[in-house]
Amino acid sequence: MTSPVIRVGVIGAGFVGSALVELLNDRSRNDALLDAATATIEVVGVAVRDTSKPRGSISKDLLTTDAAELAGRKDLDILVELAGGIEPARSYVEAALKNGVSVVTANKALMADCGTELARLASENDCDLFYEAAVGGAVPIIRALRTSLAGERINRVMGIVNGTTNFILSKMTSEGSDYGVVLKEAQALGYAEADPTADVEGFDAAAKVQVLSSLAFGTEMKSTEISREGISGIRSVDVDFAKNAGYVIKLVGVAERHGAHGLSRRVHPALIELSHPLASVNGAMNAVFVEGVNSGPLMWSGQGAGGGPTATAVLGDVLDAARNRVDKRHQVPFSVDPEIKDIDAGDTSSIFYISVDVKDEPGVLAAVAGVFGKNNVSIRSMEQHGMSNEARISFMTHEALGKNVQATISDLAKLSSVDSIGNCIRVIEGVK
Amino acid sequence: MTSPVIRVGVIGAGFVGSALVELLNDRSRNDALLDAATATIEVVGVAVRDTSKPRGSISKDLLTTDAAELAGRKDLDILVELAGGIEPARSYVEAALKNGVSVVTANKALMADCGTELARLASENDCDLFYEAAVGGAVPIIRALRTSLAGERINRVMGIVNGTTNFILSKMTSEGSDYGVVLKEAQALGYAEADPTADVEGFDAAAKVQVLSSLAFGTEMKSTEISREGISGIRSVDVDFAKNAGYVIKLVGVAERHGAHGLSRRVHPALIELSHPLASVNGAMNAVFVEGVNSGPLMWSGQGAGGGPTATAVLGDVLDAARNRVDKRHQVPFSVDPEIKDIDAGDTSSIFYISVDVKDEPGVLAAVAGVFGKNNVSIRSMEQHGMSNEARISFMTHEALGKNVQATISDLAKLSSVDSIGNCIRVIEGVK
Repeated sequence: MTSPVIRVGVIGAGFVGSALVELLNDRSRNDALLDAATATIEVVGVAVRDTSKPRGSISKDLLTTDAAELAGRKDLDILVELAGGIEPARSYVEAALKNGVSVVTANKALMADCGTELARLASENDCDLFYEAAVGGAVPIIRALRTSLAGERINRVMGIVNGTTNFILSKMTSEGSDYGVVLKEAQALGYAEADPTADVEGFDAAAKVQVLSSLAFGTEMKSTEISREGISGIRSVDVDFAKNAGYVIKLVGVAERHGAHGLSRRVHPALIELSHPLASVNGAMNAVFVEGVNSGPLMWSGQGAGGGPTATAVLGDVLDAARNRVDKRHQVPFSVDPEIKDIDAGDTSSIFYISVDVKDEPGVLAAVAGVFGKNNVSIRSMEQHGMSNEARISFMTHEALGKNVQATISDLAKLSSVDSIGNCIRVIEGVK
Repeated sequence: MTSPVIRVGVIGAGFVGSALVELLNDRSRNDALLDAATATIEVVGVAVRDTSKPRGSISKDLLTTDAAELAGRKDLDILVELAGGIEPARSYVEAALKNGVSVVTANKALMADCGTELARLASENDCDLFYEAAVGGAVPIIRALRTSLAGERINRVMGIVNGTTNFILSKMTSEGSDYGVVLKEAQALGYAEADPTADVEGFDAAAKVQVLSSLAFGTEMKSTEISREGISGIRSVDVDFAKNAGYVIKLVGVAERHGAHGLSRRVHPALIELSHPLASVNGAMNAVFVEGVNSGPLMWSGQGAGGGPTATAVLGDVLDAARNRVDKRHQVPFSVDPEIKDIDAGDTSSIFYISVDVKDEPGVLAAVAGVFGKNNVSIRSMEQHGMSNEARISFMTHEALGKNVQATISDLAKLSSVDSIGNCIRVIEGVK
């Protein structure tokens, strides 16, 4: 019996695309791929910007600069979209889906912006839209949420889903260096872009929170503003305070249920207690922590970027899509929960770390403490350090509402004895 | 359009079975379950030992003591086997598969013993055999190996897959207590059985290594002896040495590739360096660490036992099996690699920790060190502590072959100046 042939087009042959084609052409994997796909996978075209550059094992005959033509080919079974960004990636994906061609993408920005609409298009045209590599690189969290946890009621998803910021914060922790110094280092090593905004200001993590919350809570993937705070304001004094108190600072993306239909989604730095599984996820590693009502805490971790790891995730999707083609089925469409709605970060409570620089004069502590009390924020612990004619006070609060803490900060800034507000960062306790 | 109905029989209504039926009957999950299964799931029978005991939300009409009759019912779509043990569980599963009824089981002993044969039976009868809950409780590692990593070449799978021993070793580490004391505590808390042999001597972990290696390396699941060493010989002095050196002692199950077709599978305690992700998996948590050629290191962790967590894994399988019934398809059968063969643990190399009690007299160290040298085992570090007229020497070796270390131990035992060999434990370094 000859096995069916699944024809694959790939847009983009950077690190991920090249690694993917290498994997598909790796003869030592022939049997494994054939078993998993129940088909022979044939790469029939690879769209690149420049066909003259050498592309490893990719045959020259397969290369094209006309990505739109490749995306529109009706004889494809699967289009792999690795171009990134919204346009023209979106047009490519739409063209393929409208032809009933299944799509595998690693594009978190595209999925966050119009994933629900694209998934609907896939469903209407009896084909698949897979995007495992859009979150967490090699970490297979998307498929787990869609299958293993499909029947589970999830209370919280919390992830370290941006390798650049985790690399920077890990270095700041291990070396005691300042943000600016480590950012330059990360840029030199290729871990951060020349314009690092998307990473360090949390835009990338926010897109991933959108994708995760769609699967965990039934929100729609369409352009939505998610509460977002980056890491550029993290100082080495904050990192030191955290370390001494048994915490480590990480940028986290969070989506958590509040009440029956409320959902808080946000990206922000957090002091994570060392006993929490996320605290030991260092360097460019990514991890996603899920709390289900029955499953209890679960965590996935792995390399969040890089050609090989990301290509592994893409390959898993290609195999899944290939099998579905052979079986003439497609995946279950998304469930959207029409009742779920975002609530403001200010309406969620947390422990907070607050650092304030004050004049070193009598009565200051009483004035500062009074502001906390007036705003209903209860202090759990406090440390004061003298610095010539100033003092730095570091507070840890008890659980307090975000908006009460914001009001506290505004009021503190108005005190004549307060020189500056150093930082205000949420705190995540360990798993007891 | 009315949705198809999938009829489920459940054998066993202990913690897991009861939790599963609760989940299936939970009205707030109706929509999610229907979406994921593309069918309405109906529990049509639950086999128990004693029908007079109250069973939570399980209707009395569904209860039966005749498990064999339930397993043999031709009007079932799915049989969930939670009886445990080899017989009569095996007969139940075989009867169902022969009728073309899909089976979901949490039975690692059964899978380790005859999983390949049962999977073949499922394939021949166009139905499914799912067993996510057989390894790692809620941790969805089985589906990930079968799907997300189906095209990946895996070099090593290493897991903390036995909650009882991890609980005991974690307590020994945090409290400095002796094995015997902590075992009694674990028994009192229900974390260890009255006869703890299956857990503490590594039989349970070895069954899980069989199941994991089948998916990762294509070995057959049939009764095979796996090199196995338990934790009952671990002393608090070993735990202390590990702690001071920056390691923690865990029971690990390992399956790792050696050369093109060699595979080393073994269960043993190991000193794990604190920077390794497995080192922070404490208490009754389970974790599986996978190293793929392209994916790099990946880890899954979660609760390894308990009604809710295990039922979540079973539920994911039931939903998968239900969808396959509706789509009239079944999962891809196992790939068995006919060339892969087990190699002896003695032929694999590792760093070793070796603790020896010697007479405190001149020339002892030279004699002991000479034995290491003669057997080609190179010493990385050494610590000597006096104890009245004895001394305890703790060695860490460089990478050395297991059989050379065994020869060293035998030779050391013959020295008149050696009173006793305290322990010899493999060492696993952190991820660099």
